[in-house]
Amino acid sequence: MNLIDLLNWRYAAKKMDPSKPVPADKLERILEAVRLAPTSSGLQPFEVVVVSRRELLAQLQPAARGQSQVADCSYLLVFAAWDDYTAERINRMFDLTNRERGFTNEGWEAYRAMLLKSYPARGAEVNFQHAARQAYIGLGVALVAAAAEQVDSTPMEGFDPAAVDALLGLRERGLRSVALMPLGHRQSGQDWLEPLKKVRRAMGEFVTRVE
Amino acid sequence: MNLIDLLNWRYAAKKMDPSKPVPADKLERILEAVRLAPTSSGLQPFEVVVVSRRELLAQLQPAARGQSQVADCSYLLVFAAWDDYTAERINRMFDLTNRERGFTNEGWEAYRAMLLKSYPARGAEVNFQHAARQAYIGLGVALVAAAAEQVDSTPMEGFDPAAVDALLGLRERGLRSVALMPLGHRQSGQDWLEPLKKVRRAMGEFVTRVE
Repeated sequence: MNLIDLLNWRYAAKKMDPSKPVPADKLERILEAVRLAPTSSGLQPFEVVVVSRRELLAQLQPAARGQSQVADCSYLLVFAAWDDYTAERINRMFDLTNRERGFTNEGWEAYRAMLLKSYPARGAEVNFQHAARQAYIGLGVALVAAAAEQVDSTPMEGFDPAAVDALLGLRERGLRSVALMPLGHRQSGQDWLEPLKKVRRAMGEFVTRVE
Repeated sequence: MNLIDLLNWRYAAKKMDPSKPVPADKLERILEAVRLAPTSSGLQPFEVVVVSRRELLAQLQPAARGQSQVADCSYLLVFAAWDDYTAERINRMFDLTNRERGFTNEGWEAYRAMLLKSYPARGAEVNFQHAARQAYIGLGVALVAAAAEQVDSTPMEGFDPAAVDALLGLRERGLRSVALMPLGHRQSGQDWLEPLKKVRRAMGEFVTRVE
């Protein structure tokens, strides 16, 4: 697997073929990659909702500006960030880490205390924005993971988060949708974007070097 | 290359070995992967500054809470998001796309007009936050790209953005640092984090399925 080739192969599929389902084992490997993505302080402040129920996908489509991939995909990944960092959420992750590693550590506990003191006090909006950024690390990893499985994926921000949150009951769970990603297979010949050249700024206009 | 294995291999190296430089061709492939990462509307609203000048790395270290990787890495990637979406920046990307694809398109031009009308009016802070999220997609791709090259990378938010911006002259260029990523090689046996188990929430506490 050559990562550059994968990134050139992938594009934001605009038309997916509902007759070509994504195999379940591919979905699982994509989700596992997202689960392994690193996040700030290891808190993993987001969840992924995987929707494959056809009626619900049909209901979600209007909330995503009618984009056809939402209805035609095999699975819709909804990246949902924590609406806030609470003491309970922070403690749960630190407790899990201690349990998994089988010991506690003074420095680690001091770090927990620092987060408990500073994060909840910052306010929900600051914390949500921070959590959303972490979800986008997962989004980046998911894009690569899908391409590695030769599965098409379309990262989407063009949707009504309040409507999606309501349809999925996210707010009650302390979550807010930040990005959608339908997984499926491109309908070759039916997708206007497929034949168009991928455009990126030249390296010299994207990277500055201080040597 | 198995992506899951790569994600399990990588970790946030806390101690890098300055005697093991990262080969230049590996750096270039990592940067190319980040350049190919998708972003909202294809605007690529961030840049990457690559610092390898030792004196500057030594100056940056105190701005990053003294973290040793900043001084010991081969290259420090600074992810710097646009401070705002301006008409000039939006137009430059749409013009580039038209030039690269060799044609203009009514729907695409209508989309440009919509962005020109809505984005600059949202205000700099909203736009910066949005641009920062896009930079985090690049961050996620960079993490995978580094692992694919068997290069250690440490995503960092624990730094003083104002100090980093000042040292690199970013604000004058309309950029704001949002994440650092030193690239190097772990100093095995000297890094407290290396032997510790990677901890993530169980799949059932990370993913919800609606089937």
